[in-house]
Amino acid sequence: MRKILIAAFVSALSGVAAADEPITLRGMGSFHIGGRIAEVTGKETRMIVRQPGGPQTKYDPNGQFMVEQMYVQYFLPQSRKGKYPLLMWHGGGLTGVTYESTPDGREGWLNMFIRKGWDVYNSDAVERGRSGFASPDVWPSEPTFLNYQDPYERFRIGQGEGSWNSDPAKRRPIPGTQFPVEAYENYMKQSVPRWLSTDEPIIAAYVELVDKICPCVMLAHSQGGAFGFKVAEKRPDKIKAIVAIESATAGIVANAPKLKDVPVLMVFGDHVDEHPRWAAFKKIDLAYADAIRAGGGKVDVVNLPERGIKGNSHMMMQDRNNAEIADLIQKWLVDQKMAD
Amino acid sequence: MRKILIAAFVSALSGVAAADEPITLRGMGSFHIGGRIAEVTGKETRMIVRQPGGPQTKYDPNGQFMVEQMYVQYFLPQSRKGKYPLLMWHGGGLTGVTYESTPDGREGWLNMFIRKGWDVYNSDAVERGRSGFASPDVWPSEPTFLNYQDPYERFRIGQGEGSWNSDPAKRRPIPGTQFPVEAYENYMKQSVPRWLSTDEPIIAAYVELVDKICPCVMLAHSQGGAFGFKVAEKRPDKIKAIVAIESATAGIVANAPKLKDVPVLMVFGDHVDEHPRWAAFKKIDLAYADAIRAGGGKVDVVNLPERGIKGNSHMMMQDRNNAEIADLIQKWLVDQKMAD
Repeated sequence: MRKILIAAFVSALSGVAAADEPITLRGMGSFHIGGRIAEVTGKETRMIVRQPGGPQTKYDPNGQFMVEQMYVQYFLPQSRKGKYPLLMWHGGGLTGVTYESTPDGREGWLNMFIRKGWDVYNSDAVERGRSGFASPDVWPSEPTFLNYQDPYERFRIGQGEGSWNSDPAKRRPIPGTQFPVEAYENYMKQSVPRWLSTDEPIIAAYVELVDKICPCVMLAHSQGGAFGFKVAEKRPDKIKAIVAIESATAGIVANAPKLKDVPVLMVFGDHVDEHPRWAAFKKIDLAYADAIRAGGGKVDVVNLPERGIKGNSHMMMQDRNNAEIADLIQKWLVDQKMAD
Repeated sequence: MRKILIAAFVSALSGVAAADEPITLRGMGSFHIGGRIAEVTGKETRMIVRQPGGPQTKYDPNGQFMVEQMYVQYFLPQSRKGKYPLLMWHGGGLTGVTYESTPDGREGWLNMFIRKGWDVYNSDAVERGRSGFASPDVWPSEPTFLNYQDPYERFRIGQGEGSWNSDPAKRRPIPGTQFPVEAYENYMKQSVPRWLSTDEPIIAAYVELVDKICPCVMLAHSQGGAFGFKVAEKRPDKIKAIVAIESATAGIVANAPKLKDVPVLMVFGDHVDEHPRWAAFKKIDLAYADAIRAGGGKVDVVNLPERGIKGNSHMMMQDRNNAEIADLIQKWLVDQKMAD
């Protein structure tokens, strides 16, 4: 006991903590932000089936409902090295779980960046995960559900369309993939339904988060990047740096010059150019990067394979070499004077 | 810096950590457990509206989908005092957020029990929060949505039906309520939709969690208690103690004797007997307690007002005196030799 504590004490003095060292927090907690009270009136009482095989029973959809709020969980390391809080925004059909333990049970970027001394705020976008979702009487659209095989074929885990098989032995992963393919089932357990009509409330809640927590650094993945750049355009003074991980579309090109004082790092994994969908997203991202530069700003683009880092999927924060990529991001953040 | 660390060091040696002291973890992370792959076949492709005002577009609901998994987040304190892990199970229409920061931003039971030295596993039941939910093609029932005012009138925050008003100044809280009424809006942001047809997969996932993590102690609230007792009946050798917070119904009376070696604490807040709904639940709980006792088991029932602890709502883990109730639970657990 005493030995362990002394080890913790020494490591806390010496610098960045490794995975087998304790994490010491000066605080941790959660909150919901944003949202509004939706008034549903004039809807007819309808009959719904509440239990399979059960009778149709009356359901009154009218009343006031709390909707469009966003869940945020935070961890504040005792030994703070980040100059600003670090906001982590996940991609489409996912939640903040993206940054927690990897599907095969290793540490994710949440733990890694806490260990690097960042106050981390990890959120579930509106209508995802612990943010809850609104009824069809409030949102006139339906959620969509992701096929079990979809990300395997699409996220550069397997070799594109047709690489999936329900028999794991017959799947065709990309040779040398860094994704922990043996834990693909666990990855799919992280998937949540999503609506396609909620961009506006999602962005509104993120703006409220920025107004509450920032100045800050934003780390955004995939769809989260598309939201992130748009939010940054609205609050360029509050976002001190952006790390965009395979942002799936970016901001509005005409607004890009607003980010002239916000250093941006764009990170792309392996095989992006060979997959039309990802090549198209990257083209959009790079055009946005050019627009930021044209406005006097600065964007660094890292194509991991060009740095000799091979095999990364769209879910690089969960890939086997996620620590190596976290280190690369940290080095860039230190270079931008965002952390000691 | 050195001063803070020495303070942490000393407090870790001296006992239970208070809210302003750091939390030192030997590990933290998350996983999903349970679930199954649902095959949807033979459903007709249908037209859905994906964006409000947008066109109807084709949606193919067929394929394989990962469904009915459960999200679990865990925190492992460096200074472990609980003999077993502590599982926290939330109530209906809620998630594990129940045990995190209170709606008014104080520490919740998650932090408190970590500080008391418990390895805590906090979960979102199947179809709640980060567990995701299945499509109508998999679950032939609809989610239900809670009115903004419902818990105010029902959870013994306000004085029952009619005590709600959309103008906070005109609401009628129970005099002396411990619930942080000024933060009621934040509480409702924690609310998530729920299905009424998912008891079976919820229980199945909880059983898988118990098989993975236990022997353990279970702390369950409201609907979580109804699940908890049924799970304990299936795994009486793995559940070492149960703390049931206003369990909303209990287990199956005929199975109660299976819990003869599992000490149970039932905790009830204030004004329970004056509210027919809560009085009815309590009656069911006490009958179940009697059935456990008749089978040779042991149940302790604490009515908080009889201990001089007044004003507690159904959400006592978020009430202003939540630390006092946590201490009462901890004392009982120590008495059962579940912790040092």
